[in-house]
Amino acid sequence: MSGPRLLLIAGTHGNEVNAPWLFKQWSKESGLIDTYGIETERVLGNPEALSVCKRYLDMDLNRCFRPDLLESTSSPLREVLRARELLNLYGPRGMSPCNMAIDFHSTTSAMGSSVVIYGRRYCDLAFAALFQSCLGLPVYLHEGDQAEKGFLVEQWPCGLVIEIGPVPQMVLDCGIISQTRLVLSACFELIAAVRNGRQIFPDCLVVHRHVKSIDFPRDKQGDITSYIHPERQGSDWRPIRQGDSLFMGFNDEPVKFDEQDSFSPVFINEAAYCEKHIAMSLTKREVWNLDKDWENSLCSIVCS
Amino acid sequence: MSGPRLLLIAGTHGNEVNAPWLFKQWSKESGLIDTYGIETERVLGNPEALSVCKRYLDMDLNRCFRPDLLESTSSPLREVLRARELLNLYGPRGMSPCNMAIDFHSTTSAMGSSVVIYGRRYCDLAFAALFQSCLGLPVYLHEGDQAEKGFLVEQWPCGLVIEIGPVPQMVLDCGIISQTRLVLSACFELIAAVRNGRQIFPDCLVVHRHVKSIDFPRDKQGDITSYIHPERQGSDWRPIRQGDSLFMGFNDEPVKFDEQDSFSPVFINEAAYCEKHIAMSLTKREVWNLDKDWENSLCSIVCS
Repeated sequence: MSGPRLLLIAGTHGNEVNAPWLFKQWSKESGLIDTYGIETERVLGNPEALSVCKRYLDMDLNRCFRPDLLESTSSPLREVLRARELLNLYGPRGMSPCNMAIDFHSTTSAMGSSVVIYGRRYCDLAFAALFQSCLGLPVYLHEGDQAEKGFLVEQWPCGLVIEIGPVPQMVLDCGIISQTRLVLSACFELIAAVRNGRQIFPDCLVVHRHVKSIDFPRDKQGDITSYIHPERQGSDWRPIRQGDSLFMGFNDEPVKFDEQDSFSPVFINEAAYCEKHIAMSLTKREVWNLDKDWENSLCSIVCS
Repeated sequence: MSGPRLLLIAGTHGNEVNAPWLFKQWSKESGLIDTYGIETERVLGNPEALSVCKRYLDMDLNRCFRPDLLESTSSPLREVLRARELLNLYGPRGMSPCNMAIDFHSTTSAMGSSVVIYGRRYCDLAFAALFQSCLGLPVYLHEGDQAEKGFLVEQWPCGLVIEIGPVPQMVLDCGIISQTRLVLSACFELIAAVRNGRQIFPDCLVVHRHVKSIDFPRDKQGDITSYIHPERQGSDWRPIRQGDSLFMGFNDEPVKFDEQDSFSPVFINEAAYCEKHIAMSLTKREVWNLDKDWENSLCSIVCS
């Protein structure tokens, strides 16, 4: 029986150190995680940034996989060069081609462990549904965001991001390492079960669909004037409704949430998103029935 | 009545953003904190590092106040230049001289709010005792550490560091801001009371005296092989005894604490200390009687 070729990436952001550390231990001790015989490539996304403890050197690597950047022959940005290199090595038409990719991240937000998918590719939806069914992970569907594009996993036929938090940047944390290992193990179990035709898909997928991101309140100079309200801090996934406290400063009443719809915020106060002017992202929780075409799409990749 | 000239520093480390943010709000809204008429200079320690979200550019500014570095005329390190500049501006013999300094920091360790003093200067001990008596803050006495020297506040006749955590680097956090503001307000109250001769000093000071720092277990390549044990993570100040779990890896039993003496660890898993090869620092908790000479020393500075 053939199978997928799986690319596992850690350290796409050089200051997220837990998955890279786990990968290193795994390379020293191959039995640490059972791969069920699945062919796997493990790679550090941005080793140069990792070596200097920075998220990135010139540009966020996980925003560099945009066609315009990848196709431009003149870009001097080191992360764009690295994006091309990763594709040349492990891309679907690379030297050691992979058809599935899982990119391991951590966050300072209190999101626990979650799956992030980019757009509605059938195979991603099916794979996310399996993670949800197996580990109970919430799924954040990122789509329709013109400001944030060019994610790594979009370049592989099937691919998703695992986000685990909360953890400060540059901190090795027992809980985060343990969660990362758990998700990694589950990943192989799930793919192996699909390959063997033994996987039972759930009936539905709960998605948190990205609607928009909101920035901190700022003054005319662009300086942040209010911080995340204590009732919101650490409250990722918990619905926010009109009139709920959102931000807080010293001299005013709390800034209240002022939309008629309710939303579930994610990436609340993620350290790296402040520079992107994102205080949190708002999602709608929706329950989608699983489609047989999703399963077929994932199965065709896993059994290719 | 005359009084002290107080230097308040925020952002000595450019990725510790809460105190700098609070200082900015305070500069816009002078009534935010009651200074009790005490003459105050407020300054960002390392604005250049802050603007690029880094702890430092060339060298940790809070290790640059070493005589050999300050006196060398040839150092090209930007933080050494900044250290000289701060002394030229606000040092005891500077253009706008100050005789007390308080340096506001944050930490990823779960230390809560604490006072750090460097060595046993009488005035520092007395001032720390006042903070402890007023707010219940633990006091970490850093001394006798040949590897870590050149702290900013040592250059002022009286000076201490306030550490507040846990908070990730680069995250504005409601609790940290609120704690920083509380300590800042208390600082003015305490100095004003000393100046007015109305301050009652406590009978004793509980110090956590620095004994030594310990590194993560590492392999021959220098790579970390074990992380902080779950029982230690977040357990700053809580005593550790022989046989307690200290570190944890995948393939071994936990690394146990193996000293006959018990210690109280601090700065457990501080993100910035990994590069200094410090997994935590071990302290001895001691109760010292307050000495009248300490009070006199502080009073003479406050009423100078």
